[in-house]
Amino acid sequence: MTPAPATRLDTARIRAARQVIDPVFLGSPQYRCEALEAALGCAVSIKLETANPVRSFKGRGTELVAALLGEDGPRAAVCASAGNLGQALAWSGRGRGLDVTVVASRFAPAAKLDRIRALDARLELVDGDFDMARERAAAIARQDGVRLVEDSLDIETCEGAATIGLELLDTAPAFDAVLVALGGGAMATGVGHVLRTLAPEVEMICVQPSGAPAMTRSWHRRRVVTTESADTIADGVAGRRPIPDVLDDLLLVADDAVLVEEASIIAGMRLLLDRAGLVVEPSAALGVAAVLEDRDRFAGRHVVTIVCGGNVDMDAYHRWIGAAPGR
Amino acid sequence: MTPAPATRLDTARIRAARQVIDPVFLGSPQYRCEALEAALGCAVSIKLETANPVRSFKGRGTELVAALLGEDGPRAAVCASAGNLGQALAWSGRGRGLDVTVVASRFAPAAKLDRIRALDARLELVDGDFDMARERAAAIARQDGVRLVEDSLDIETCEGAATIGLELLDTAPAFDAVLVALGGGAMATGVGHVLRTLAPEVEMICVQPSGAPAMTRSWHRRRVVTTESADTIADGVAGRRPIPDVLDDLLLVADDAVLVEEASIIAGMRLLLDRAGLVVEPSAALGVAAVLEDRDRFAGRHVVTIVCGGNVDMDAYHRWIGAAPGR
Repeated sequence: MTPAPATRLDTARIRAARQVIDPVFLGSPQYRCEALEAALGCAVSIKLETANPVRSFKGRGTELVAALLGEDGPRAAVCASAGNLGQALAWSGRGRGLDVTVVASRFAPAAKLDRIRALDARLELVDGDFDMARERAAAIARQDGVRLVEDSLDIETCEGAATIGLELLDTAPAFDAVLVALGGGAMATGVGHVLRTLAPEVEMICVQPSGAPAMTRSWHRRRVVTTESADTIADGVAGRRPIPDVLDDLLLVADDAVLVEEASIIAGMRLLLDRAGLVVEPSAALGVAAVLEDRDRFAGRHVVTIVCGGNVDMDAYHRWIGAAPGR
Repeated sequence: MTPAPATRLDTARIRAARQVIDPVFLGSPQYRCEALEAALGCAVSIKLETANPVRSFKGRGTELVAALLGEDGPRAAVCASAGNLGQALAWSGRGRGLDVTVVASRFAPAAKLDRIRALDARLELVDGDFDMARERAAAIARQDGVRLVEDSLDIETCEGAATIGLELLDTAPAFDAVLVALGGGAMATGVGHVLRTLAPEVEMICVQPSGAPAMTRSWHRRRVVTTESADTIADGVAGRRPIPDVLDDLLLVADDAVLVEEASIIAGMRLLLDRAGLVVEPSAALGVAAVLEDRDRFAGRHVVTIVCGGNVDMDAYHRWIGAAPGR
């Protein structure tokens, strides 16, 4: 076996995490989706992270965070969120009687904000983007002395997501490549760490929107590159300021990082709806979009795409799907 | 423990079935879906049977059928199908090199027929409804000497579906009632047998469309009642001629059988899409429809609804969803 990459993550801890995370987030569906294959020109398996109480993979990480806080922490936490982390932290915190504050952009999808409120978290909106929400969350943590949960930086968020990687390798059918949505990097470094450690032959490809390319550019240049703005419908991955420690890990585990156009993301969402019956948020269609943009690369291979979230405003969703070409 | 009901089903065989069925069909997502609860006025959990290669629960039963055929059967089978059984039998048969023929109504959803063909089964269409397809399948079986797979009559189809019942009871949160779509009766007798045996305190309610009420009427009158026609968008449960043996079992395990209107089925599909992000076929919305039609009955209780299939023609789906009131 190749030695484990020297990331901040630990394979034994990731295995142990499966005993801590509520089973409702574990063992998510994983299946060949032949109905997609004619359109994509390769064998496609789906890892579906939307069929749980928060409709995204983020519960895997927040369960770890909340379990630790419930043990000996301050019993209060604050996080910045594009919407999915906040929802998941609210869910995990509620079950353990923790006091959760979520800071989000007021431009985040209403569906995500509504669900955070419904889960009894305190929601504070900032008049800016996700990176402004991060600053505000940090200020609240300092001021109130509560735990700041930083997505992708906090190891629990990465190791929680990494349990997806263990599950990918639990079942038999071998695959050649895994397509992972890239935002802050928790899922990419988590799944990547597991693949690099236990299945180094599998290609691990990160996918980010062209409109929010900071982490992908950073990966290619091997140093943090920030952007002035982010412009994409994939709100879940629209960060501008990569975290240096996370980039370091990503450099150790990713084989490639690619950018895709908005039109491809929409085409991917439409394919997932029409052929696979799946309602997904834009971030969850990044893998399909990557295949659509580079069929030759994947022709005849078996790819797994992690469908990482399904929290969309339905009005926007219908607008995207309906406006897409071919309809 | 109360004695097991004297159905044709056997609890030990159902437990053993979990070792035979491909894991891709087992352990389907099961979770509280709070986003539905405001609209329904009760606690709601979902058992999601659409996130697998055939997008319905039918694979659980066809895996048992095909495993037996693969062992010592004629290695060829024919079934009548409203679309989901045929797809599942084609999938299970393909994996074992079996020769599968599916007889379906030419009015069945094109999405279902296309998928049956794509799975390498021989597809024969009859110019009539599901019950006419049943007659034709029986004729083919006699003529060609191949195994006739009869949904709901063949015990494997019931005991396969019954594994859903075991899973419902695997995890902790207690519920008060289970809502099961009622068609031929495989799922209702299967899940019902398990509940009656292992959790007799849980109310087991069957739901059928008013437009295809044969089995429900039969249950209430305690004898087989056939209907001249069936008229419902819920193609998966549109039988006219209940099978006596299946009715006998259903009488032993169901607490109630109710009928719902087409408008409620559509409203249920829309709720599942808008609030839960789930694309379901009409049969899979019957449980939600039942709550919508009788909120008082379920107020304050915890119900589980089995979302049993997601194979829809997208054009019809958009028409139903779009045309529903409130949009």
